[in-house]
Amino acid sequence: MSKLRFRISMSLDGFVAGPRQSVENPLGEGGMRLHQWALPLAVWRAPHGLQGGEVNESTPVVEESLVNIGATVMGRNMFGGHPGPWNPESPWNGWWGANPPFHHPVFVLTHHAREPLVLEGGTTFTFVTDGPDSALEQARRAAGGRDVSLAGGASVARQYLAAGLVDEMELHLVPALLGSGERLFDGVGDDLRGLELVRTVAAPGVVHLKFARR
Amino acid sequence: MSKLRFRISMSLDGFVAGPRQSVENPLGEGGMRLHQWALPLAVWRAPHGLQGGEVNESTPVVEESLVNIGATVMGRNMFGGHPGPWNPESPWNGWWGANPPFHHPVFVLTHHAREPLVLEGGTTFTFVTDGPDSALEQARRAAGGRDVSLAGGASVARQYLAAGLVDEMELHLVPALLGSGERLFDGVGDDLRGLELVRTVAAPGVVHLKFARR
Repeated sequence: MSKLRFRISMSLDGFVAGPRQSVENPLGEGGMRLHQWALPLAVWRAPHGLQGGEVNESTPVVEESLVNIGATVMGRNMFGGHPGPWNPESPWNGWWGANPPFHHPVFVLTHHAREPLVLEGGTTFTFVTDGPDSALEQARRAAGGRDVSLAGGASVARQYLAAGLVDEMELHLVPALLGSGERLFDGVGDDLRGLELVRTVAAPGVVHLKFARR
Repeated sequence: MSKLRFRISMSLDGFVAGPRQSVENPLGEGGMRLHQWALPLAVWRAPHGLQGGEVNESTPVVEESLVNIGATVMGRNMFGGHPGPWNPESPWNGWWGANPPFHHPVFVLTHHAREPLVLEGGTTFTFVTDGPDSALEQARRAAGGRDVSLAGGASVARQYLAAGLVDEMELHLVPALLGSGERLFDGVGDDLRGLELVRTVAAPGVVHLKFARR
């Protein structure tokens, strides 16, 4: 059975983005601190077309997260935060550039219907307006037996978490405080819906906590 | 130099107590889930006068936390949550019983002055009404060169954290959600004041994250 797999960087005080998120600053103020552990890694740089980089305890965790993914689900803000309906006179193709690092079908949850966007390297963005269940179903079908990656942002992740649809969750816990911003688990309740901690990996600037169904 | 050392159990969503804390239920609803990892341990049972128990990866972490402590600072709620001023006709000696597990001087931050309480086994409770700096100074003096333990609760811990007075912090991160209750880091801001993650220990039902000044 194809799994829904989710990973996200979270601060010690539970934030996955800083305050005052915007199209210009999608991570919010200070939110970049949550991703500093990943940026120097060779395994992060390669899919973004960059040479070199470090190898450390995070490397196998990131490598594992990239294996056996056949499709991705994400929220509108994760795609690019375009606030209005699709306007063919002024196309907005998100901030992923001409050759996004997915290389597989991506399903974007949104309230604004638009035609699919086919980009280089095998990435297509399909816009889903009939809810998270439909997006997941379409992604599962597109994945052809492989797993589906839940790319976030937090509000979409919360919906799948609260519905008990997440099969694996890798939390990249960053040992720092953001103090304010968007919390991952707000409104999810007091129940991880069968997800249990199955692996802990300490690495420079981050602790990776893997949750799965036993 | 005598260190101020703090340890506390926290849920994945940042809570150190559940909602609706009271004198009858000081951990709040569901708060007991934060301490399940510790209760079976021999190293937890022994100071509470209980025989037997488990030994696992948590054991050396708990043992370390008990070494070289000469005094303790805690908040009124941690002492016993008595809401009113001291009444010699109806003495309330907290919920620690006749022989508390501290065996050293304990300084309780409160707004209500009362005489020190001398109990069995070397534990004395001294009630401090002139603030956290004074309580820490008195505890340092009483500790005679050894370290001071900050026992909580959360509101007292936040004051010392925000003032940059905590030298070591052991977070017992419990991989579960409480959903609501009291958050450890609310109001502390976006700065750990020089505390850095120096050790990660995965154990049954908990991940121990040790922070210290490098």
